[in-house]
Amino acid sequence: MEKFSSEPQPLLALVDALRRLPGVGVRTARRMAYHLLQHDLQAAEQLGQALTEAVERLQHCEQCNGFTEVPVCATCEHPERDASLLCIVETPADQNSIEATHGYTGMYYVLMGSLAPLEGRGPDELDFGRVLKRAGNGLVKEVILATNFTAEGETTAHYLSESLRALGIKVTRLARGVPAGSEIEYVDAGTVAWALMERRPT
Amino acid sequence: MEKFSSEPQPLLALVDALRRLPGVGVRTARRMAYHLLQHDLQAAEQLGQALTEAVERLQHCEQCNGFTEVPVCATCEHPERDASLLCIVETPADQNSIEATHGYTGMYYVLMGSLAPLEGRGPDELDFGRVLKRAGNGLVKEVILATNFTAEGETTAHYLSESLRALGIKVTRLARGVPAGSEIEYVDAGTVAWALMERRPT
Repeated sequence: MEKFSSEPQPLLALVDALRRLPGVGVRTARRMAYHLLQHDLQAAEQLGQALTEAVERLQHCEQCNGFTEVPVCATCEHPERDASLLCIVETPADQNSIEATHGYTGMYYVLMGSLAPLEGRGPDELDFGRVLKRAGNGLVKEVILATNFTAEGETTAHYLSESLRALGIKVTRLARGVPAGSEIEYVDAGTVAWALMERRPT
Repeated sequence: MEKFSSEPQPLLALVDALRRLPGVGVRTARRMAYHLLQHDLQAAEQLGQALTEAVERLQHCEQCNGFTEVPVCATCEHPERDASLLCIVETPADQNSIEATHGYTGMYYVLMGSLAPLEGRGPDELDFGRVLKRAGNGLVKEVILATNFTAEGETTAHYLSESLRALGIKVTRLARGVPAGSEIEYVDAGTVAWALMERRPT
């Protein structure tokens, strides 16, 4: 019997499991575990159930690769959406942002990531073959690349753009420029440079 | 049928459940959910199981109030630990820090919080009656107050100190002073002031 105490096994197991969440280190995991066990047992039960249900019930949409409970999601099945437009995004969160504009009624494809060859995420890992097949179904007239304006997102857009053009599909990219409602004085120089280069007639 | 998509219910439920973790807002919760579902299904299952087990199997130690799988924890049951010393800490993490010194072999009491009357955490919520009963069991000769050196921790220590002294129990507090290994030039003035006031003969 050790003279100095160690914590009970279920607590250690919970801390270990919480550490696997992105951005959660051992101290944060410990704080979360204590909080759940001491102050919010109901939240612990709720989270446990939600995880089990999500793992059991969610799958990837056969068409857009987003999360869904059925083989083809409601967005892809919707009769009023425009099948000639395909918007490629990195994550479901990006798709939500575009839906929130209420200005786009085409289809989506969710990459579930971006190219990062140094981290082992190449075109095969992201299943680009499937993306090209989806875009080349004969109905799609234009692909809108809505990957992030980060190094990884730009690389992804560049790579997809080349491959899609080779298939003879029209490819566009979200406009770069000064954000709505912002004062030019406070916008970074790179953004202003893009806005100048891509200036439009009024 | 809504033209604009909403996410599948199990995903929304998972995001909601993750938001109940301390320090997790809706964006972080969403990122965690996507990460688990897309890149680490195994972690999702592991966390689900760990939560269920922790909720089912952990209870509070009858003596020290810490988390344990049995009515009285191994630390409280240990025959070689000194029953005349009782160290009062705010959280199990604080208890771990003190155990990590390998310099203390007395008993513990874990408050599971600190006094914060404005947030509704008064002496009754922290069950101070139980603390006083534990300290006044006739075996405890000295209570070491090891609450944090924050406003809340100091308030807690002050309150407990008064109540324990009224019971005729010797009460001490962890020493305040310059941290080991630090250069005085870079230590904050408040700490140096305490270190001066509480200077000791060498």
